Amino acid sequence: MKIKTSYAAILLSLAAMNTQAVEFVLTNSASGEDVGNWQVSNQSLGLSANTPFSVEKRRLHGGKQLGVDVLIVNNGELTITLVPTRGMGILKVERDGKRILGWDSPVKEVVNPAFIDLESRNGLGWLDGFNEMLVRCGYEWTGHPGVDDNGQLLSLHGRVQNTPASSVKVTIDDAAPHKITIEGEVSERTFKKAELVTLTKLEVTPGSNRFSLHDTLTNQADYDDEYQIIYHSNFGRPILEQGAKVIAAASEISPFNDYAKAGLKEWQTYLGPTKNFDEMVFNLKPIGDADGNSLAVLHNKNGSSGVALGYNVTQLPVLTLWKNTDTEQQGYVTGIEPGTSYAYNTKYQRPLGLVPTIKAGESKHFDVTYTVLRNNKEVSQAVNKVKEIQGQTPLKQLTQPLVDLSKAD
Amino acid sequence: MKIKTSYAAILLSLAAMNTQAVEFVLTNSASGEDVGNWQVSNQSLGLSANTPFSVEKRRLHGGKQLGVDVLIVNNGELTITLVPTRGMGILKVERDGKRILGWDSPVKEVVNPAFIDLESRNGLGWLDGFNEMLVRCGYEWTGHPGVDDNGQLLSLHGRVQNTPASSVKVTIDDAAPHKITIEGEVSERTFKKAELVTLTKLEVTPGSNRFSLHDTLTNQADYDDEYQIIYHSNFGRPILEQGAKVIAAASEISPFNDYAKAGLKEWQTYLGPTKNFDEMVFNLKPIGDADGNSLAVLHNKNGSSGVALGYNVTQLPVLTLWKNTDTEQQGYVTGIEPGTSYAYNTKYQRPLGLVPTIKAGESKHFDVTYTVLRNNKEVSQAVNKVKEIQGQTPLKQLTQPLVDLSKAD
Amino acid sequence: MKIKTSYAAILLSLAAMNTQAVEFVLTNSASGEDVGNWQVSNQSLGLSANTPFSVEKRRLHGGKQLGVDVLIVNNGELTITLVPTRGMGILKVERDGKRILGWDSPVKEVVNPAFIDLESRNGLGWLDGFNEMLVRCGYEWTGHPGVDDNGQLLSLHGRVQNTPASSVKVTIDDAAPHKITIEGEVSERTFKKAELVTLTKLEVTPGSNRFSLHDTLTNQADYDDEYQIIYHSNFGRPILEQGAKVIAAASEISPFNDYAKAGLKEWQTYLGPTKNFDEMVFNLKPIGDADGNSLAVLHNKNGSSGVALGYNVTQLPVLTLWKNTDTEQQGYVTGIEPGTSYAYNTKYQRPLGLVPTIKAGESKHFDVTYTVLRNNKEVSQAVNKVKEIQGQTPLKQLTQPLVDLSKAD
Repeated sequence: MKIKTSYAAILLSLAAMNTQAVEFVLTNSASGEDVGNWQVSNQSLGLSANTPFSVEKRRLHGGKQLGVDVLIVNNGELTITLVPTRGMGILKVERDGKRILGWDSPVKEVVNPAFIDLESRNGLGWLDGFNEMLVRCGYEWTGHPGVDDNGQLLSLHGRVQNTPASSVKVTIDDAAPHKITIEGEVSERTFKKAELVTLTKLEVTPGSNRFSLHDTLTNQADYDDEYQIIYHSNFGRPILEQGAKVIAAASEISPFNDYAKAGLKEWQTYLGPTKNFDEMVFNLKPIGDADGNSLAVLHNKNGSSGVALGYNVTQLPVLTLWKNTDTEQQGYVTGIEPGTSYAYNTKYQRPLGLVPTIKAGESKHFDVTYTVLRNNKEVSQAVNKVKEIQGQTPLKQLTQPLVDLSKAD
Repeated sequence: MKIKTSYAAILLSLAAMNTQAVEFVLTNSASGEDVGNWQVSNQSLGLSANTPFSVEKRRLHGGKQLGVDVLIVNNGELTITLVPTRGMGILKVERDGKRILGWDSPVKEVVNPAFIDLESRNGLGWLDGFNEMLVRCGYEWTGHPGVDDNGQLLSLHGRVQNTPASSVKVTIDDAAPHKITIEGEVSERTFKKAELVTLTKLEVTPGSNRFSLHDTLTNQADYDDEYQIIYHSNFGRPILEQGAKVIAAASEISPFNDYAKAGLKEWQTYLGPTKNFDEMVFNLKPIGDADGNSLAVLHNKNGSSGVALGYNVTQLPVLTLWKNTDTEQQGYVTGIEPGTSYAYNTKYQRPLGLVPTIKAGESKHFDVTYTVLRNNKEVSQAVNKVKEIQGQTPLKQLTQPLVDLSKAD
Repeated sequence: MKIKTSYAAILLSLAAMNTQAVEFVLTNSASGEDVGNWQVSNQSLGLSANTPFSVEKRRLHGGKQLGVDVLIVNNGELTITLVPTRGMGILKVERDGKRILGWDSPVKEVVNPAFIDLESRNGLGWLDGFNEMLVRCGYEWTGHPGVDDNGQLLSLHGRVQNTPASSVKVTIDDAAPHKITIEGEVSERTFKKAELVTLTKLEVTPGSNRFSLHDTLTNQADYDDEYQIIYHSNFGRPILEQGAKVIAAASEISPFNDYAKAGLKEWQTYLGPTKNFDEMVFNLKPIGDADGNSLAVLHNKNGSSGVALGYNVTQLPVLTLWKNTDTEQQGYVTGIEPGTSYAYNTKYQRPLGLVPTIKAGESKHFDVTYTVLRNNKEVSQAVNKVKEIQGQTPLKQLTQPLVDLSKAD
């Protein structure tokens, strides 16, 4: 009798689980299937949500967009455009019909990786497709191109962003607030070389000004492997402008190279579009709260608009700040980039201890939250949160780069 | 009252403009759209043209043609096949159901650039897809493969031909003779490297034996850039044959390399298919009329069939003559190639002053006209036109190549 | 009157030929056409075959499978999955709903060559897509990556497997046993470099446990060329296991490199999945019967399941045995690989006389038969056949590799 009751309870529990969420498999390479153009909304689901939402999958055309799918998640407050064909990257985030997160790259199309040769231009082929708000740089390697110690050219920022997602799944909670979850598996699989599989997960709640990534990298090989990841998060107009500011909880900052030395003191403020500026990169050692949670904030000059990046320093122990305040056409943009590693070539990061190992079968989790700051109050609150984490910890300024690239070959 | 009248006049004028032509957008990467297979004709437009015409867009299949679109323009006299997926190149031109312009390459398929790795074979990957009547070689660079002064491998003949068109538009004039215009935008966009956008335009009038290209290259970057272009125009059977002749208005000719020295004297006449001939290349300095308009003519042995290339020496100051009269299977073909530059690697052309600069925001225009010569009279007229331009200017024969490739690394 | 009769006879003969088989053209790059998803079966053909059969063409989706077609041939006994998009390779063979021939590669998707850059990772890009039971390695070159004598990097195992088939044709005999023939043309065509066209042909009879390949390589160029081919035939579970055995009629065996020396004595038996085993490769000189027909057999430990490869030593004079009994996730697999050549880079095989020439216009034929051995009796018969061919010929064991790779650059 007792057992019977338990059994019934389990069944009920399973039934409850079955109805907790509705799930749509949009793409699945294991079965070889894809739904094509597709859409769902609170209305089509019969949900009378207070905040309307929709998720749409659309095939793009024209130029190098041949065969590219985008996934447009509208939570009623934000419209997030993901690119399954480009490693589940985030192209842009819109609000009130205008882009709020993202930037204007010279690259206008959403480029199918089929048209990209990553090793071209001495390993700079990645630049042919770079225009997203979020690019994952990884996982076999993450940094600048160069020949690694084993003689192999490591192309800029790894391969994952130019890898089409093997599977894409949309899940919508039955119960309010009807959380929307987008899962996409991106696989770096090369016989004898890599079995690094990343289950990317984006979560967003209807009506919210925030969305979060919860990625799980698994080394499916029977051998330990190196890995690296940078969350290359890029922001241009409208947040970036002359006088815009970045605030990040950190204990150390240093120039990436000699050129960045000149900008070290003013690392927190931005120039307007500046001809011949090119890029200045700074390496930060971020700090977190008791749980390791850190925060970096970028906001516009008058503090009425911004973005906050939440991440955890136990997962992503370093932060790269990329200031590319060159001209508008050149791509006026800044990158706030938590990662396991800086942007140096892998061979320079091994001595720094920034090329971690993932054991055979092991999984690594990475959580990054993006909050759109919509007014002075939200910006202030986020800035105060950074200050709170910073507390009394001083920010040490190293005047010399961590790596002496002048000796690089 | 006067103003009112003017206003009305403007409205009328605008209305007239609106009805001057009917326009079809076939592909547009900005909106992510493409019409798919598509066709229009004088009949479908309700135009009782004296000369019937049609324009058809068709998706190819099979082998490396996966995803390739061709655009077939039939003006009643000529059938011109354009390849939007391959940089708006011209595959071939037919007349009376037979190819009149073009050649038989060992490459039989219309290859999707997705299958081409331009830097393969030490920069010769371009050869995997080369089979068109017109290939644009450019615009970042144009010549033979080699490592440039900055250490980057420049692959053969640049990237533009292996770049799918971002947009394709067909315009047909309402009024007779119902000129057909095909516009295709081809973009070379790489973050920090290039923003060279070319609006290619082909114009042809129903019933005409002539079509023309009017291309506009714009440097959309905020920085000046180098550029180079060669209109690699290739002709085999039926025009090319033993005894065929080329006539070009020019003031100087020189062999491209040591091998071509032996053919300098006979540069104007062609051999039949000749085993082990490989290719001989000659560099010409063309001359134009008072307006800079020059002409080159290729005709068959008895002068009953040919093609005339019109171009302007102020836009395209040099002319490459490529004689590839090897065997039929190897590709029996000649190239008559007006350009800003010869076919040397860029590093050899800078000292020759043949690597021009395009300023930030600047546009460069290139006009090339192809006329199919259908009988002895048309050939004679074209040859006479060349002689007229040549006038009393002697053709200086330089026996040594402009570049000493024997010293090349 | 006599002539008239003959003429009628010819007509009758032609009519008979026309009805001997039904033919379906699935893909044809010459006409630019493709049937899309497609299926035929004994039922749809109105054939009341004793053994049902079907052939299905299906487009895959997901990840790097974008645009990939598979062709699934079910003869009632075996289900053979071919991949037209990957050079007509054979992905796997199933029996009773389970894979019998093939293996579990870390590469899970059927990768479109558009996503592969063969020259990446110093010429190892081929590893991004390697997961088939049969990969053809050729035809311009076949072996390990390396810079050839002419300065060109030859990428691993050639280009043909990453070349989509230009045409695919299915033929089914009208008369019982209704032999099924799959023909696919795979073209390696590069201007001035190669015109190697292979008509692959797979034949299988409904109900049979055997299928065969009859490939014809033609050099369509006007010049002689080198060529190489390895039939890289790969088997994992269920046949491969600890104690599995390989038997091959051969007169000589040698280790491929120094590492393989240690496994020379035990070349016929297999380890179970073994960490850090990596791969051991052996070079065999096979022998055939009076007609040159040779046989190699792989069977499981208890001899109840296996596969026999029949090939002809006049066509394929060498045999590579690839023992990759590393861990399951790493790819537990062995390759039994008849070929014109071993797996060394081309430059090392020229001195061995293993880089044959194909004359201009010449064709070379290659026949390979795969027999699924379903029980101890079939395994025994196959093993006895190998012994019969071996006869009294001793197997000479060379302890040193044919090529001294320690001196390789």
